[in-house]
This record gives sequence, C-alpha cells and structure tokens, in this order.
Amino acid sequence: MPRVVDHHERRAEVAAIAADLIAQRGLEGVSLRDVAARGGYSTTVVTHYFANKHELLLHAYRSAGSATEARLAAVAADADDRLLAICEAILPLDEARRRTWQTWFAFWGSAIADPELAGMQRRRLLWFREMLADELTAAGANDPHEAARELLALVRGVAAEAIFDPDDWPAERQRDLVERTLDRLVVPA
Amino acid sequence: MPRVVDHHERRAEVAAIAADLIAQRGLEGVSLRDVAARGGYSTTVVTHYFANKHELLLHAYRSAGSATEARLAAVAADADDRLLAICEAILPLDEARRRTWQTWFAFWGSAIADPELAGMQRRRLLWFREMLADELTAAGANDPHEAARELLALVRGVAAEAIFDPDDWPAERQRDLVERTLDRLVVPA
Repeated sequence: MPRVVDHHERRAEVAAIAADLIAQRGLEGVSLRDVAARGGYSTTVVTHYFANKHELLLHAYRSAGSATEARLAAVAADADDRLLAICEAILPLDEARRRTWQTWFAFWGSAIADPELAGMQRRRLLWFREMLADELTAAGANDPHEAARELLALVRGVAAEAIFDPDDWPAERQRDLVERTLDRLVVPA
Repeated sequence: MPRVVDHHERRAEVAAIAADLIAQRGLEGVSLRDVAARGGYSTTVVTHYFANKHELLLHAYRSAGSATEARLAAVAADADDRLLAICEAILPLDEARRRTWQTWFAFWGSAIADPELAGMQRRRLLWFREMLADELTAAGANDPHEAARELLALVRGVAAEAIFDPDDWPAERQRDLVERTLDRLVVPA
C-alpha cells in the first residue's frame, strides 16, 4: 500500500532541494523543472507547493534565515566571548555557513530590483543590528549603536569577500579581524 | 539616404540599455527581448551583439568596472584626503554609484554559481586591495596590507547595507565611518 504523502514533509523536501540548487547555481540557473528533476518529481508536484521561482527564492531566503537563527540560538548565554560567538554564527566559516551566504547573494541579486525583497533585507539587517547593539550594551561598549553598525558592516564585508575567495579568508583570518574589532569597540568605560 | 549604422556605436547602445535594465531589474528580470524592446530594436539586433544573457551580464560588469575606474582616475593625485577620495569613488554616495553597486549585486548573484565570474570578482578585489595598500603605504600606515584588507571589507560592507537602506546610510554617514577608520588605520609612525 503506498504511503500517504505528508504534505508538509514533501513541501519541505521540495523547498530544501530548491534552496540547495539556488545556492549552487544562482536563481538564474534554476528552473522549477530542475527542482522537480533533482527530486524525482513531476513539475506538477513542485508547482503544487511553489507557484514560481519567486516563491522558491522566498522560501530559500527564509530557510537561510532559520539556519542562521538556529546558529545564533546555539550560542551559550554566558559565553565569555559571546559577541565573537555571535559573529562566528554568521561568518562563512564552514561549508554550511557559506551555503547560507550563497543564498543571501542569490537573494540580493533579485532584491536590488524588488521593493518587497529589499524591504525584507532591510528589516533583517535592522533586526540583526539591534540585537548586536543589545549585546554591545551588555558588554559595556561606549556607543553600542554606532559600534553595532560598524561591526555588522565589517562582518558582512568580510563575508562578501570570503564567499568569492575562501583561500584568502580562512576561518582564522575572519575571526582575527572580528576579534580585533570587538577588542576596539568594547572598551570598558 | 539611411545613415550607415556604426557597429561599435550600436553595440555600446545595446550594452548600455542592458546594463541599465540589469541594474534596475536584476538579471533574472531581464530578457534579450526586453533589451530589444527598450531600444526599439528587433531581438535579432541584440543577439547580433550579445549571444545570450551571460554575455550581457559580462558586459554590464565591465561597464560598471570602467565607471569605477573613471571615478578613481578623477581623484587628484595630490589630494589631501586622497584615501578618503578613493573610498568615496566606490561608496554608493549618489545615484550613479548606487547603480554601479546594483550591477555588482546582479553579478554576484550569478558569480556564486559560476567559477569564471567568481574568478573575475576575486581578481577585481585583489587588484583593488593592492591599490589601497599602495596608497596606505604612501600615507604611512603601519601595516598597509592588513589595513587595506580591513578598509576594503568595511567599505564593501557599508555599500552592501546602503544599497538596501539608503535612508539609513546617507552619504555623510558613509563618509564619517570611513573617515574614522582611515584616521585609525593611518597612524603616523
């Protein structure tokens, strides 16, 4: 007797395949047909869950966001280097985090031309910066809001380089620069 | 008598239209047909110069590069704030420079999945960092190579935020952060 397909499960399966393909090939390089072929489905199955590539991209973006939030949630509340650990959670230090950044890049390529996506990107950025400002306040930074702005810009700049040149930005080098920046920004009053 | 069309001129015309459309809509949102329609050509005219979207993207990328290089060349050799002026040449401080960044973003969205494009991006980055290191050496920075790395990551991080939230990053704020960074990095020995 064939197993009754759990729709949530299958939707998640299709979405995961799409997210992988988008990170690997960029949005331009992925069609609904590719997603179907990779999963061994008919295209109809894919379009049942995701009407078009825009919806696949949105879902890939949300998945990348959830992955980042899970990494952030795993940072110990009482870690000595809590701020560094938070930055490490978002830096492309390993393959999984690189994959997340590839998804951001695929998304940005569309978001430059789409006010709705640009708005999502903007809100995500502000949310993250506010979170960093809270942490910097707790750590005793002098000007936590300005410090959060600078720290996040630097982390994102490092990531944007490391994605294209991982050999030039081994994990240790990414960490070192962020650590130095934190040492400078978090000066006990 | 109809004017003989100058092929170089028309190719440049087509390329400029494509570059504008890519910056406005992202690569995904542009077809060869759109480029033709915008210019009032037949699609055949467009494909005569550019076989496919990949070629259009490459050309848009090169145009953005040339625009940046022209801005850099315009920085006075003896400017007091030469390093700041160089950073200003690449920061998205006005509409033209924002347009350049939108092109980079469209390009990155494809470059994550294309080793050839990723290589171009990598070489561009190294070229630029080396140029900054030379300038930092001339300005008397202590560790010009590390300083160039940090400065470029910061500038690119600021740009990547400012593109999606220009209100949050008015020109003055972009300049201030880069100026503070330069003051810190260029410490007379």
